[in-house]
Amino acid sequence: MIIVMKRHAPEETIQRVIDEIEKAGMQPVPLIGTERTVIAIIGDERGLDEAHFRSLPHVSTVMPVLRPYKLASRETKHESTIIRVGNVEIGGQTIAMMAGPCSVENEDQIEESTRGVKALGANILRGGAFKPRTGPYAFQGLGREGIDLLSAAGKRHDMVTVSEIMDVRDVEFTASKIDILQIGARNMQNFDLLKEVGRLQNPILLKRGMSATIKEFLLAAEYILAQGNPNVILCERGIRTFEDETRNTLCIATVPIVKELSHLPIIVDPSHGTGKVQLIPPMAKAAIAAGADGIMVEVHPNPDVALSDADQALDLERFGALMNELGPITHAVNRTLPND
Amino acid sequence: MIIVMKRHAPEETIQRVIDEIEKAGMQPVPLIGTERTVIAIIGDERGLDEAHFRSLPHVSTVMPVLRPYKLASRETKHESTIIRVGNVEIGGQTIAMMAGPCSVENEDQIEESTRGVKALGANILRGGAFKPRTGPYAFQGLGREGIDLLSAAGKRHDMVTVSEIMDVRDVEFTASKIDILQIGARNMQNFDLLKEVGRLQNPILLKRGMSATIKEFLLAAEYILAQGNPNVILCERGIRTFEDETRNTLCIATVPIVKELSHLPIIVDPSHGTGKVQLIPPMAKAAIAAGADGIMVEVHPNPDVALSDADQALDLERFGALMNELGPITHAVNRTLPND
Amino acid sequence: MIIVMKRHAPEETIQRVIDEIEKAGMQPVPLIGTERTVIAIIGDERGLDEAHFRSLPHVSTVMPVLRPYKLASRETKHESTIIRVGNVEIGGQTIAMMAGPCSVENEDQIEESTRGVKALGANILRGGAFKPRTGPYAFQGLGREGIDLLSAAGKRHDMVTVSEIMDVRDVEFTASKIDILQIGARNMQNFDLLKEVGRLQNPILLKRGMSATIKEFLLAAEYILAQGNPNVILCERGIRTFEDETRNTLCIATVPIVKELSHLPIIVDPSHGTGKVQLIPPMAKAAIAAGADGIMVEVHPNPDVALSDADQALDLERFGALMNELGPITHAVNRTLPND
Amino acid sequence: MIIVMKRHAPEETIQRVIDEIEKAGMQPVPLIGTERTVIAIIGDERGLDEAHFRSLPHVSTVMPVLRPYKLASRETKHESTIIRVGNVEIGGQTIAMMAGPCSVENEDQIEESTRGVKALGANILRGGAFKPRTGPYAFQGLGREGIDLLSAAGKRHDMVTVSEIMDVRDVEFTASKIDILQIGARNMQNFDLLKEVGRLQNPILLKRGMSATIKEFLLAAEYILAQGNPNVILCERGIRTFEDETRNTLCIATVPIVKELSHLPIIVDPSHGTGKVQLIPPMAKAAIAAGADGIMVEVHPNPDVALSDADQALDLERFGALMNELGPITHAVNRTLPND
Repeated sequence: MIIVMKRHAPEETIQRVIDEIEKAGMQPVPLIGTERTVIAIIGDERGLDEAHFRSLPHVSTVMPVLRPYKLASRETKHESTIIRVGNVEIGGQTIAMMAGPCSVENEDQIEESTRGVKALGANILRGGAFKPRTGPYAFQGLGREGIDLLSAAGKRHDMVTVSEIMDVRDVEFTASKIDILQIGARNMQNFDLLKEVGRLQNPILLKRGMSATIKEFLLAAEYILAQGNPNVILCERGIRTFEDETRNTLCIATVPIVKELSHLPIIVDPSHGTGKVQLIPPMAKAAIAAGADGIMVEVHPNPDVALSDADQALDLERFGALMNELGPITHAVNRTLPND
Repeated sequence: MIIVMKRHAPEETIQRVIDEIEKAGMQPVPLIGTERTVIAIIGDERGLDEAHFRSLPHVSTVMPVLRPYKLASRETKHESTIIRVGNVEIGGQTIAMMAGPCSVENEDQIEESTRGVKALGANILRGGAFKPRTGPYAFQGLGREGIDLLSAAGKRHDMVTVSEIMDVRDVEFTASKIDILQIGARNMQNFDLLKEVGRLQNPILLKRGMSATIKEFLLAAEYILAQGNPNVILCERGIRTFEDETRNTLCIATVPIVKELSHLPIIVDPSHGTGKVQLIPPMAKAAIAAGADGIMVEVHPNPDVALSDADQALDLERFGALMNELGPITHAVNRTLPND
Repeated sequence: MIIVMKRHAPEETIQRVIDEIEKAGMQPVPLIGTERTVIAIIGDERGLDEAHFRSLPHVSTVMPVLRPYKLASRETKHESTIIRVGNVEIGGQTIAMMAGPCSVENEDQIEESTRGVKALGANILRGGAFKPRTGPYAFQGLGREGIDLLSAAGKRHDMVTVSEIMDVRDVEFTASKIDILQIGARNMQNFDLLKEVGRLQNPILLKRGMSATIKEFLLAAEYILAQGNPNVILCERGIRTFEDETRNTLCIATVPIVKELSHLPIIVDPSHGTGKVQLIPPMAKAAIAAGADGIMVEVHPNPDVALSDADQALDLERFGALMNELGPITHAVNRTLPND
Repeated sequence: MIIVMKRHAPEETIQRVIDEIEKAGMQPVPLIGTERTVIAIIGDERGLDEAHFRSLPHVSTVMPVLRPYKLASRETKHESTIIRVGNVEIGGQTIAMMAGPCSVENEDQIEESTRGVKALGANILRGGAFKPRTGPYAFQGLGREGIDLLSAAGKRHDMVTVSEIMDVRDVEFTASKIDILQIGARNMQNFDLLKEVGRLQNPILLKRGMSATIKEFLLAAEYILAQGNPNVILCERGIRTFEDETRNTLCIATVPIVKELSHLPIIVDPSHGTGKVQLIPPMAKAAIAAGADGIMVEVHPNPDVALSDADQALDLERFGALMNELGPITHAVNRTLPND
């Protein structure tokens, strides 16, 4: 950590900072410059409280040198993490293809969806039961009944399942039925929920918050890892910007940045990331070209009767076309699709 | 709602939209333009699903005419809501002054804080027990013990109390001890938590999410109102932008915008809104000048030993100076301070 | 255009809007709703002034139906524009590879750069002579001398050249020496400069402004097209967001969105778009996978002595490696590289 | 400047950084930490090129310690700058009130506007002649004829005038007729224009760019100051964010931040900052409460026939009401209005 004092900071305020650093067991190195004094700290700064130093008298700025996450960092664990669940690997050679409806609506719909996406090459079945909806009057999902329907469909078709949870009281129930639990963008900093899923061993699909920096995204993963669950899959799904042609700005650069900073696998969700059906194929291709470990897309057998997010779901025909388009790109980066 | 069809949309796709509108019990009005067809809907569109219409073939855009919240809207309830709790009113003639430490740390600290802020004119005591921290290794608050300490301090000094909750499992306990429950920015769209506090009668202080639009902010309030709790206090605390001189960009315009759109009271938090002690006084003055119903500030008897957010807390001397500065501004907008 | 009146708007204010529409030669269609009146306008609304209608008494909102650009729109010209300059096509089957140093520094440096990038497969030579620098004390480029050096290098090696202009007084000089004139992100809304280059026939490479919406981006192109120059190449180079791991947030979705809305070619600049050398290859691959017509990258024979933007330039070895990586992706989307 | 090396950086790369620092005439101080080496630089780092050091092998990050502007900095000039023009001071005790129409439209309109705003207490007359319009088909202003009309109106009524310039070729003409030249938000980084007005002695009103950080804003001022013109007035006019209830997010905190970092006066433009007439009064009050040195508002004798930005202009009655509301706030912060 580097502490920059204000110009003309009195001697005793500089001494105070030095004393506080020593008290914390670190070694301070004061650098007396022509314009101001800077105090460098030697040692693992992650035990120090930045805000505390920032609040000391005549301190101008405090600049951390190390990144604040440890377990999520590639410096801590150099080799990439591969998460295995059922017969599927995420983060390995094969691109994970997660597909299914935004919401589980009824048995027929989830059955038709599952059969369809499996036949076309998806290896993980998604479906929402607890739905985070912006307004209270929108369809809120089938809840536990939806979890049961999704779980049954996954079992019938031997597919790994993934579904979102929002309430700590649903964690245990859902974890017993569904393979991968998803933490949605709105809950990326719901720290009690992160801690709760950190106590499981199910893989956790953690979506980036709408206004989360990559540092905060990895710190949210760190919450889960710190509780003992090493199976975190990151998911870029777009951030909020001023641009209004798309629902969110899907930040493809997150993929190589996360690959550099962390050992965790990362996938991309072009459905929520754009909010427009016609942008899903080009953005899915871009994601794989940039190194993503998987793609999550909304597929509905009949999007124009869907109960939620109808405008960003592919029908089965379009999902088949997408799989066909993804083949050559996937091979161009020396990876494989589940149905290769 | 206005539905704009794509140029050269086939006749049958236009008819499909018209049929769907009629099926939903509304009246469609097709307008055949020179470049494209537009279909207006007469009736209360809030029962319709925008996304569904957007997903229909050859639909270009869907534009809602009405705002999606009802109970929070000033059109539904014209007179401004005044929330009464203990001997305090929020949204009335007197500016609510909420002050106290970021975190409750121990009995001495909360006692000294309470005595201090009360003597200087605050009428509501704030203090954090459940702390949302970006990283898992930072101090997470005293939890229920902190709630007990805050509650006791409030009782001893006859002050209304406010504290944040994050976990649905803490709602009942906290509501029985603390007057006003706060939903923090990170939980503004934690919908299960919103529903849970919507079943209480305690006033709820709802902070704006870091990347929430004002529409989403009012929809989050609507979640609480829709469950039967009419006592929602809104709080602007800054949004996330590219600017890095401040922790957040405190959006003062939210105050008059919310006053126009909603009947609910709105306060401003310049501590989190800026993250810098020296910006709290000018921004608190700006907030009151713009019509805010209250101010929430972090005050710590000894900020440079605080366990959290030390760099944005006023000491008691500075809080006293702030109260003195706020007097003339408050009177200039024909309102009063609690200690007038 | 759709004009939504406020609830309870008096009859005469509605009539006023209707009169104004008729005065402008359009046909108003009033729709009397249960909650408010909406007035639709039939006719080409692009002649109407939105702001004027918004300012009329008791008007709530004004929603345009048509997009405000015409010449740039794919509705006006359906087939994609291919721009031919020298022996190069932009927007056709072959990906345009623009490479060269951030700044032209001296004859040796530009000679070495040109020889290097040409041998490795670039078909357009870039080099900055007029440099927009955030601070006045940074190297501002060689100016017209730099233009002469770039022009000579292009001629020696038979390469098409591109360079940025910032000052209307340099347009004529530069246009006589350089093939493609670049308008940088900071000047995307320098309307006098847009008009000036609109009077040329040289192709114009128009970069997206740091906070420009895609609508504004296409309107800036419209300024050039409206003056008679049809040769506009768009360039996505990142927008400004809260994320600080990269200099800008490179918005790959701009590529398919622009392809849908406009007939103009679009390329991507991953150097400025990320500001980090190691992110250039994955983002260049993502851009081509998403359908970009070209890539612009900074290449310097010796980046660590470069006079500007040293941290985002590839050396020749890395540029060669990039070209090798781009091959399979380019072929996967059925396109070719210049050196195929 | 602080240079952080990557973990396990080879000894020779550390030595290279040290050598480069010494070559630049500064003193390097290497700090060998447990996890990585940090090299601090003692001396005035503003002569160093951050990007160069960032491009050296095995450098992880480069953190500047000093702010990059000098002449604009309050560290360089401690007392606040007061700019005197005609009988008006900007930055002194009296709030500058700049008012007038968005565009100068004709002699009658500007005469009526001038008479009106002067009578109600404005001391500076604004009016646009060169108009930056997002699209090429909108009214572009009267150009030099507008400058002549504004100049004449100012002379007739003995008012200081301010008008925007966009093209370097109009600088000399406009500077000879108009007192204060305005650089608009879109041209804040039009560096040739900044240099050109830096050679004048007319005060320059510099508006913050839509996505400019405060650092970049002050660096733009530095461009003008570095050419020899010390008379720069800064103007906050809102930044671009995701919020869509207002045209821009007016960042009131800019006022106290700029006051801390710089000696230059700063005013606020609530017309462009919000884009909504009804938000002008609360935001003007907030600006003055926060310490702004002036307010710029659009006033039109008859907004609903205005040729541009009609929806954000006050009529004379509303401007009079605003002046009445501003009185008590201005006095509460111990300042005066021009008509006090």
